[in-house]
Amino acid sequence: MADFELGCTACGTRHAPDMTTLGCRECAAPLEVVYDGSAVAGGTTPMPFRQAESRSLLPPRETPLVRLPRLGRELGLARLSAKLEFESLTGSFKDRGTSVMIAVAVESGVTELVEDSSGNAGASVAAFSARTGIRAHVFAPATAPAAKLTQIEVYGATVHAVDGTREETAQAAVDFYRDRDLVYASHALSPYFLEGTKTFAYEVLQQSGGGLPDHIVFPVGNGSLLLGAWKGLKELFEAGQIADMPKLHCVQSEAVRPIAAARNAEEWSPANAGRTVAGGIAVAAPARLRQIVEALGATSGTAVTVDEAAIVEWQRLLAGREGIFAEPTSAAVFAGLSWLVADGTIGEGESVLVPVTGAGPKDRLP
Amino acid sequence: MADFELGCTACGTRHAPDMTTLGCRECAAPLEVVYDGSAVAGGTTPMPFRQAESRSLLPPRETPLVRLPRLGRELGLARLSAKLEFESLTGSFKDRGTSVMIAVAVESGVTELVEDSSGNAGASVAAFSARTGIRAHVFAPATAPAAKLTQIEVYGATVHAVDGTREETAQAAVDFYRDRDLVYASHALSPYFLEGTKTFAYEVLQQSGGGLPDHIVFPVGNGSLLLGAWKGLKELFEAGQIADMPKLHCVQSEAVRPIAAARNAEEWSPANAGRTVAGGIAVAAPARLRQIVEALGATSGTAVTVDEAAIVEWQRLLAGREGIFAEPTSAAVFAGLSWLVADGTIGEGESVLVPVTGAGPKDRLP
Repeated sequence: MADFELGCTACGTRHAPDMTTLGCRECAAPLEVVYDGSAVAGGTTPMPFRQAESRSLLPPRETPLVRLPRLGRELGLARLSAKLEFESLTGSFKDRGTSVMIAVAVESGVTELVEDSSGNAGASVAAFSARTGIRAHVFAPATAPAAKLTQIEVYGATVHAVDGTREETAQAAVDFYRDRDLVYASHALSPYFLEGTKTFAYEVLQQSGGGLPDHIVFPVGNGSLLLGAWKGLKELFEAGQIADMPKLHCVQSEAVRPIAAARNAEEWSPANAGRTVAGGIAVAAPARLRQIVEALGATSGTAVTVDEAAIVEWQRLLAGREGIFAEPTSAAVFAGLSWLVADGTIGEGESVLVPVTGAGPKDRLP
Repeated sequence: MADFELGCTACGTRHAPDMTTLGCRECAAPLEVVYDGSAVAGGTTPMPFRQAESRSLLPPRETPLVRLPRLGRELGLARLSAKLEFESLTGSFKDRGTSVMIAVAVESGVTELVEDSSGNAGASVAAFSARTGIRAHVFAPATAPAAKLTQIEVYGATVHAVDGTREETAQAAVDFYRDRDLVYASHALSPYFLEGTKTFAYEVLQQSGGGLPDHIVFPVGNGSLLLGAWKGLKELFEAGQIADMPKLHCVQSEAVRPIAAARNAEEWSPANAGRTVAGGIAVAAPARLRQIVEALGATSGTAVTVDEAAIVEWQRLLAGREGIFAEPTSAAVFAGLSWLVADGTIGEGESVLVPVTGAGPKDRLP
């Protein structure tokens, strides 16, 4: 097992790893797992586990990486691929992060935990809690899609539907865990969740035959997939397993665009947030905003926004051209990609990878 | 490419392969693909393709085979596993069969086709038709779950909602394709569909490290997964790659139980069919009934029925114990398995595999 600590993503202060430290004690910034020595060199993806059997909770195989020839032509791209993250236990990429976070919870003897989610993360936490016999409380906005709330409840978790914004939902979860002295398994804050999403990068390298795509375009709400991928890519780079970093791009809805605003030096505040069909990226105040903007800058990536009509249009295009029925959050990325191609950020001859992060049938009907 | 013909499953008469021969010209029984020579010996799963690139339409990787330790204990079984067939492009095992059927359609120059389905097969045919630029007409009962009908429509297929039974829906599809001289891509009748579902057996062998489970328990409507698995197992057996056949068991709803009645010599007719939440197995007159009963007999398998309350109960148990949210059709199998264990058909020390054929979120909410 690799030795590790929790490092602050802003000031670098190290903390002893546990399940309850979710922010730096010096500056309150979010934390990440930092391994000692050359953890990557061993060949297996480094994981923050104390017990070898914890790996058995990880998804049993990689998600498919498929070519999208018809949509690629439509966009004027020679090499467009998608990674079908919805082909997983609960139908979204969240299973990557949750499986690691819950495995650490089991190692730590946690028997009851609290999470807040717009839907997909809640379903994933509920499922992995069920598998490991942990009691889960999931706080979600009452306006979340009924199919997602039902899914959480079927797994046996207690759903706390909150009449309020995404941010008010998170606050209700925080009040609840503090009142009852429970563990807060927040996918937005947990450093272990990012350790799970970083497997995305390791899989892409393995599936690409060593030649990574020039660009990876992500839907960004809390940014956990983009940040996990970036951490994985940095580990692989530092271990000498890759020579170049792909550019990591961020797509958000015009209605909720804190990252795009920060990256593009635009005035924007959570008070400006509007409604969007892309519930998975409707996060007005992401806890890891600074880190996400840093990842975009470090890889020369951009942040673009898309309007509601484009999201719905691309959901139909993706399904109609490639047989992939994605949730609106994932369709938004293709709308954003069309902009990145149109303005020349991504050139015709370059290769592009898009994660399709969530399944269409779980969300509201278009 | 392997040489093949279409052989009658009843009288053995051979027919030249095409997309329009769906029954024996001598006795009207359903057909299956028959390869010449030792097609299996080559190491790759034999497929009825003329062109090597047709394989690129197959699902890009195996579905996960996972242990169910908690539910196994609940059932008193030492070794219970599930194959998560819903982790696929459209969320059900139907993608196995459809990918092969549509690849053959593409090779045959088909540009427009007709299918009838209670939901999952229609979604799968719609998705693979979209990927290959084929125009699809899908006939479905108007009472099918809204989420499934929407999924079909999002892929760009034309949905023909029929006010009538599953059988009347099939008749409407037949009338339509005959009127317009289109190809009938029926998952219940197409011999190519079974060639796709047989990959289930090849994957199980590969994932079991050579030691197949003692029992495989299937939900059975048209029986395409059970029959495909049986064909694959026979091919592997004849090629000397396996020494023993698992027992193949069939689970149906009490409300719609043609196979169970036939296997157990009980009087039953489609006129006796009632309503069930398990839409995927609500097939009162399966075209391949004789073949399915033969498969059960040949492997010493049984057929059991389950009531509606048990289906709903096991849907919650599977989700709550193992974090697997299956559609009612798949939950029915676990209810049936509990009977097979209770009556001693399956012993405590034996190993059991259950395919979880469809995703819960696509179906009606429980």
